[in-house]
Amino acid sequence: MFDSAELGQSLDKASFKAREPELREALLEAQFDLRDAGFSVVVVIAGMEGSGKGELLHRLLEWLDARGVAAHAMRAPSDEERERPALWRFWRRLPRRGRIGVFLGSWYADLFLSEGSESKLESPLRRIVEFEDLLADDGTLVLKFWLHVTKKNQRKRFEKRAEDPHDAWRVTKRDWDLHERYDELIERATHVLRRTDTGTAPWEIVEASNARFRDVTVAERLLAALEERLARPAPEPPAAPELPVPPAVNLLSSLDLEKRLDEDEYEQGLDRYQGRLGLLVRELAETKRSLVLVFEGPDAAGKGGAIRRVTRALDARFYRVVPIGAPTEEERAHPYLWRFWRHLPRYGEVRVFDRSWYGRVLVERIEGFATPEEHRRAYGEINAFEEALADDGVVIVKFWLAIDEAEQLRRFEARERTGYKRHKITADDWRNREKWAAYEAAACEMFERTSTRAAPWTLVAANDKRHARVEVLRTVCERLEELRGPTDEGKKRKKR
Amino acid sequence: MFDSAELGQSLDKASFKAREPELREALLEAQFDLRDAGFSVVVVIAGMEGSGKGELLHRLLEWLDARGVAAHAMRAPSDEERERPALWRFWRRLPRRGRIGVFLGSWYADLFLSEGSESKLESPLRRIVEFEDLLADDGTLVLKFWLHVTKKNQRKRFEKRAEDPHDAWRVTKRDWDLHERYDELIERATHVLRRTDTGTAPWEIVEASNARFRDVTVAERLLAALEERLARPAPEPPAAPELPVPPAVNLLSSLDLEKRLDEDEYEQGLDRYQGRLGLLVRELAETKRSLVLVFEGPDAAGKGGAIRRVTRALDARFYRVVPIGAPTEEERAHPYLWRFWRHLPRYGEVRVFDRSWYGRVLVERIEGFATPEEHRRAYGEINAFEEALADDGVVIVKFWLAIDEAEQLRRFEARERTGYKRHKITADDWRNREKWAAYEAAACEMFERTSTRAAPWTLVAANDKRHARVEVLRTVCERLEELRGPTDEGKKRKKR
Repeated sequence: MFDSAELGQSLDKASFKAREPELREALLEAQFDLRDAGFSVVVVIAGMEGSGKGELLHRLLEWLDARGVAAHAMRAPSDEERERPALWRFWRRLPRRGRIGVFLGSWYADLFLSEGSESKLESPLRRIVEFEDLLADDGTLVLKFWLHVTKKNQRKRFEKRAEDPHDAWRVTKRDWDLHERYDELIERATHVLRRTDTGTAPWEIVEASNARFRDVTVAERLLAALEERLARPAPEPPAAPELPVPPAVNLLSSLDLEKRLDEDEYEQGLDRYQGRLGLLVRELAETKRSLVLVFEGPDAAGKGGAIRRVTRALDARFYRVVPIGAPTEEERAHPYLWRFWRHLPRYGEVRVFDRSWYGRVLVERIEGFATPEEHRRAYGEINAFEEALADDGVVIVKFWLAIDEAEQLRRFEARERTGYKRHKITADDWRNREKWAAYEAAACEMFERTSTRAAPWTLVAANDKRHARVEVLRTVCERLEELRGPTDEGKKRKKR
Repeated sequence: MFDSAELGQSLDKASFKAREPELREALLEAQFDLRDAGFSVVVVIAGMEGSGKGELLHRLLEWLDARGVAAHAMRAPSDEERERPALWRFWRRLPRRGRIGVFLGSWYADLFLSEGSESKLESPLRRIVEFEDLLADDGTLVLKFWLHVTKKNQRKRFEKRAEDPHDAWRVTKRDWDLHERYDELIERATHVLRRTDTGTAPWEIVEASNARFRDVTVAERLLAALEERLARPAPEPPAAPELPVPPAVNLLSSLDLEKRLDEDEYEQGLDRYQGRLGLLVRELAETKRSLVLVFEGPDAAGKGGAIRRVTRALDARFYRVVPIGAPTEEERAHPYLWRFWRHLPRYGEVRVFDRSWYGRVLVERIEGFATPEEHRRAYGEINAFEEALADDGVVIVKFWLAIDEAEQLRRFEARERTGYKRHKITADDWRNREKWAAYEAAACEMFERTSTRAAPWTLVAANDKRHARVEVLRTVCERLEELRGPTDEGKKRKKR
């Protein structure tokens, strides 16, 4: 894998001086065009100790216009980062469209230094491939550089540094330990590079024994990739979306919407499950878990009311309701899921999403805000997103509150009569109502494609609000109880 | 202070039921109008244990439209928060215009429970007054509620809770300890409330022994304040700004811009101070400090070049350059300083601002983006901001790189000739040049008003780039050395 990076390639001072001005000019030129080009650039710099990752970063920052590039030389994660899914710290640093983000100590850092069997890496590697695929699909130009040094080069480099009074502190015992492990580490790196060398985000191996050659090579590849991408014609504007038609028999139409609770059953249900939920949520922190609730459903399905019955059981310090409406400018300048990553809870916390990332395959699909290609891709992206969360301790419970057209009409009309609910109904709501069948079809497709083991959908009959609310509370409790192992009560219930 | 909140005021169930629908409707109505009203609302809920802060929060969240309100019941600070100025965690949670933020365990929480002499509170109290003044001046409606319970009420409440099997866990040993300290704590609270009861952000004392009375009282005051503010006529559009005229003799005109270094002096200077700076910055983390560098000056004064000479001395993991251009939509929806609070460093880190919050009194003043009132207020806000930072371990070094008009012209022309610098010059730059005198006048006023002990300005003669770069490096080094106490070298220098 590294043969062509052990040829002793180098660049002498004079050639470097001769090439630098032109290279720099072209980079700035490309950066200038990038500003309005509608995509971002992510550069990963990886390599063994002594390959000069930091030096290369300094050089790139010198050549590029500082206003359009941010460098992220990652340190140990903060507690806010440790208590969230592994990729959270990188999502929060993703560059916005028109900008370049250079990552040193990237999402690969832990893998290159990991010990133990290769099979343990499978899951993190898959997450990385999914992450980079998502970026690339969103239009991000992803460039990954492995700076290669041989074991001999590495030793020479450490020795030279150790002799320099200015630099000696930079060679630590850890460096020499890593040098001892060179063969093992290069084997691990080979595996990681091979597994993540994808068509959308390929690795570039760069010979790094000569600093000038290394820096010019990376800069030239960055430039070529940028120029190639900038020269691509803008994509065709998408055609108007076709409204999907629901199958005659489907999950929603087969749901019995008429399930009801009377006042007593309702009060008992609330009391029982709210008490239990309060206790269960207090256990989350100890077990390094957090809870994400997703509420979807037609307008006026009763999402807000159901959410309040959940949050009333919770300590205000540990939950937040996140209402999802139109994205902000900063959110639009990032990949679609960025705005949801932003709001992920820490261990012990609950986040309730009042509408969610599923907007992509519902309203955005039907109104044509997402292209057909985008909404089709979204299923996979969302499944990967939820799986990554679940792997890192996030419990996800997703609700679809189902009402029928007649019930919605009754509620709309009632809202228009009730003063304080008047603002809850807008012209958009009436318009959406006309597309009822399309929404139903989109929802059914969504259930089919995104009901995963990590995050199954729960369809709740919601024509009766009382039934829906208790059902939601019960489902959350049972989900949390399942995860901590069967309780006595749980066992009893299963027997019945 | 609490006499009128110990009258035993309460509201019976029937009256509560009768008032609730109308109150709720009016709140939603007001919230609806708030959405486009261009200001935000900050609600602080404070009070002793047992006053029902959490219950009140739950009730408010039930009455308000969840889409326009966020509750922040603060927990212990994260490490990202602990390593930044105290108010950072609240700045990051400020609601955007059109929204309501409710804070429980706010910036007051530590003060109410603090022990020791009142004089120790002076500095934190002053910061709070400054902070709330800034919010109010920015148009934020700041409402602060103290929920008052007597010692007797508190005991009753704890006893009642302890008897309830659902609630017993909520009464902890800490609660009873606080109950023991009631008299001392209420005295401390009185002091804090008095000192922070300002015209722009007054405290409302609310009798809290009866939950219904408490909740309706707070909601009604919130409503009245919202309605009053919404009814205020929109402010007059500001008149075009008057361009300031510089005094004939001023700090800039009296600066000797012709100081020069030859190539050898330059190389020696870089070498000497970059080495020193690298070492000094590595000491920051140990002493719980961070470093903020501010670079201002005319276009083409050489800010970017000077910054690169600084960052070259630093480990890429510990610094970031923050270029300040036009604010994003989210930034515009918050008070002016929000976008700078966002970028403050953690202990051990360096942030370099390429242009900064001083834009408010320079370009925004002169181009009329800030009203005359806003730019005049900005001096005080900025001084308070920098002082708060300095108090919490942030070392601030501010540079004005000074060049004269002729030098700027030479550099503009040279940039237009040099390909890779062509994009660094825009039509705006030529336009700004025509207002040279106004910028000079604004800068001189800025030096006078914002050169504080905590954060003095350093004017650097920059007609010669070499001189300017070494001067910048030297100043940063000396500033950091001063702070760690005199070194041998420092002592020698002072003797000379």
